Amino acid sequence: MSVTAAKGFSAAGIAAGIKDSGGPDLALVVNDGPRAEAAGVFTSNRVKAAPVLWSEQVLKGGRVSAVVLNSGGANACTGAPGFQDTHATAEKAAGILGHSAGEIAVASTGLIGLRLPMDKLLSGLGTAAEQLSAHGGEKAAIAIKTTDTVHKTAVAEGAGWTVGGMAKGAGMLAPGLATMLVVLTTDADLPAGALDAALRDATRTTFDRIDSDGCMSTNDTVLLLASGASEVVPDQAEFAEAVRKVCDDLGQQLIRDAEGASKDIRIEVVGAASEQEAVQVGRTIARNNLLKCALHGEDPNWGRVLSAIGTTDAVFDPDQLNVSINGVQVCRAGSVGEDRDKVDMRYREIRITADLSAGTESAVIWTNDLTADYVHENSAYSS
Amino acid sequence: MSVTAAKGFSAAGIAAGIKDSGGPDLALVVNDGPRAEAAGVFTSNRVKAAPVLWSEQVLKGGRVSAVVLNSGGANACTGAPGFQDTHATAEKAAGILGHSAGEIAVASTGLIGLRLPMDKLLSGLGTAAEQLSAHGGEKAAIAIKTTDTVHKTAVAEGAGWTVGGMAKGAGMLAPGLATMLVVLTTDADLPAGALDAALRDATRTTFDRIDSDGCMSTNDTVLLLASGASEVVPDQAEFAEAVRKVCDDLGQQLIRDAEGASKDIRIEVVGAASEQEAVQVGRTIARNNLLKCALHGEDPNWGRVLSAIGTTDAVFDPDQLNVSINGVQVCRAGSVGEDRDKVDMRYREIRITADLSAGTESAVIWTNDLTADYVHENSAYSS
Repeated sequence: MSVTAAKGFSAAGIAAGIKDSGGPDLALVVNDGPRAEAAGVFTSNRVKAAPVLWSEQVLKGGRVSAVVLNSGGANACTGAPGFQDTHATAEKAAGILGHSAGEIAVASTGLIGLRLPMDKLLSGLGTAAEQLSAHGGEKAAIAIKTTDTVHKTAVAEGAGWTVGGMAKGAGMLAPGLATMLVVLTTDADLPAGALDAALRDATRTTFDRIDSDGCMSTNDTVLLLASGASEVVPDQAEFAEAVRKVCDDLGQQLIRDAEGASKDIRIEVVGAASEQEAVQVGRTIARNNLLKCALHGEDPNWGRVLSAIGTTDAVFDPDQLNVSINGVQVCRAGSVGEDRDKVDMRYREIRITADLSAGTESAVIWTNDLTADYVHENSAYSS
Repeated sequence: MSVTAAKGFSAAGIAAGIKDSGGPDLALVVNDGPRAEAAGVFTSNRVKAAPVLWSEQVLKGGRVSAVVLNSGGANACTGAPGFQDTHATAEKAAGILGHSAGEIAVASTGLIGLRLPMDKLLSGLGTAAEQLSAHGGEKAAIAIKTTDTVHKTAVAEGAGWTVGGMAKGAGMLAPGLATMLVVLTTDADLPAGALDAALRDATRTTFDRIDSDGCMSTNDTVLLLASGASEVVPDQAEFAEAVRKVCDDLGQQLIRDAEGASKDIRIEVVGAASEQEAVQVGRTIARNNLLKCALHGEDPNWGRVLSAIGTTDAVFDPDQLNVSINGVQVCRAGSVGEDRDKVDMRYREIRITADLSAGTESAVIWTNDLTADYVHENSAYSS
């Protein structure tokens, strides 16, 4: 499972002492080859963490031999010294593994605005390298958790090749990219360009369409590494679909583990004039705090859906809007539809369909409810 | 005080039985002249309640003789029958008061998607008309409350003239306009055009810059009525300033009474390339749920300010951002500044200054923290 499901990869996850709790906080994923092709997608936040700035440069070369990931600190808003810390991390890993630092990607997650304890991190890298194993994927997935309650892994199999991956993320799930660190690996024999096309296509309709709390991270990183160890060159469409499946699976795991959430909410916008407008409307609904509270209270408050739609500039006529909640059309032609008491909201998943009656395009956005537990998790301590 | 502070106005507030609770739910404000000039500003939500659609038409004529306001139901998303209900309300008030229905503004607040109990409302109008009084402003202010814990009134005095007003609003405070019903009255002798200019200028920098939860209402209405009863034609600038003061005062009362809030947060964006960008950045910070939770927990988590700024397209360099919280510059040049432990956050008001270092423009946005009480108020029952 995880990043070691595909051939040609080893991984490790250890407790380096970065987290005060003493829990696992450092992961190492190594591409053992024969190839080291790679693609990456990063946060669109203009305030980017040092490891994002570093890894963006690394990925321009299309080669990644190893990824160092730490929890316990985001290394964001730490200025030039923070960037030097990331650089030193890559240099240290490169020295241990016998690669160039320019092929070492780095990803960090945790509190913004604090320097990492570099002595512990660098010393931990040595320990992690000693523990590298072709069965280390699960330990790596555990080491990147922050407020995640479970670690997240997924695998898809092709004809003679495999795509596997791990993800962390629970808090700042958002647009552009949900806050997350994701490493995907494959033993397929594909060049960086093919990986990049598959990865961008997959993230656009998966990670990019989950929005737990509307907040975008400074550290989002999704990497796809290919070892070529299967010696199979898959069909591009089949490969892209496998990458999409793994991203979709991991994205669903992120939503189900979102901080404090008690409901998973699937918002499908149909009848839109364009896919872009469907996404815009879906996101606006997903970010409406009043609606998210109502759904937490199992109240099918469709008026809050309409008031959210009304703040967008998508094409629609207010008198032609239809809204269904869990299959009951509570709003018809912009007005009262079926009896809201018919809506059964006891289950964790809530399905909202908003029909703009303005075209044929659609999109699905996933979000969560807003709960007192979310407030507690994000107010009781710095994260 | 309130809408009867200025000469030439009478008002009433009664319990008409619209609210299940039996509390006051119907207000009537009458301009007794000699003039009936008026201006209005309405929600920019494209899903507009029936009374907004009606009153927008009324205000085009620049004359308002009376305003009927009800709590207990928003009359939004109620289709053509809901619009007919508003029309019937205006007709009934016009008949009682001896005016044209085209001079009767209507405003409603409460749950979206339910028809109003028209028999109770129309019968209540008769009772309200009987109770009209030059001292009825406070009762009117009480009758428009929904989840407001206090009623809100304000007055400013000019040289021989007065501006007074009342407001309700606590939940969907937001952009465009914070959710609210506001009626301002003045005995100044001014034409509709002068009122309109003063009102638009005032709302732009007051109600339009408070944003409690990012949600925009379908029912926002701000009206300014002039009776001319003072027979004084004030200087336009002095009058505009008085209107701005009353709006600012009422806006602050709205923020202090926002649902579940325990902190009032003043976000000043300085060093912006334009006022528009200052407002955009301020609003984006104001809507960041993670920051609002942190401030609730008295955690000066400036990283969440930077991550919010980073999602805007305003002009700035991430390495030139400065953030102060309650006077302590916790972020300097995009990185760690003074010790965050120096920030005293025990008091209800929190002041954040974000310096974009990109120009000389600035703006102030007010918001609240996000609390478990907010979640409870908005999930425990429909509103």
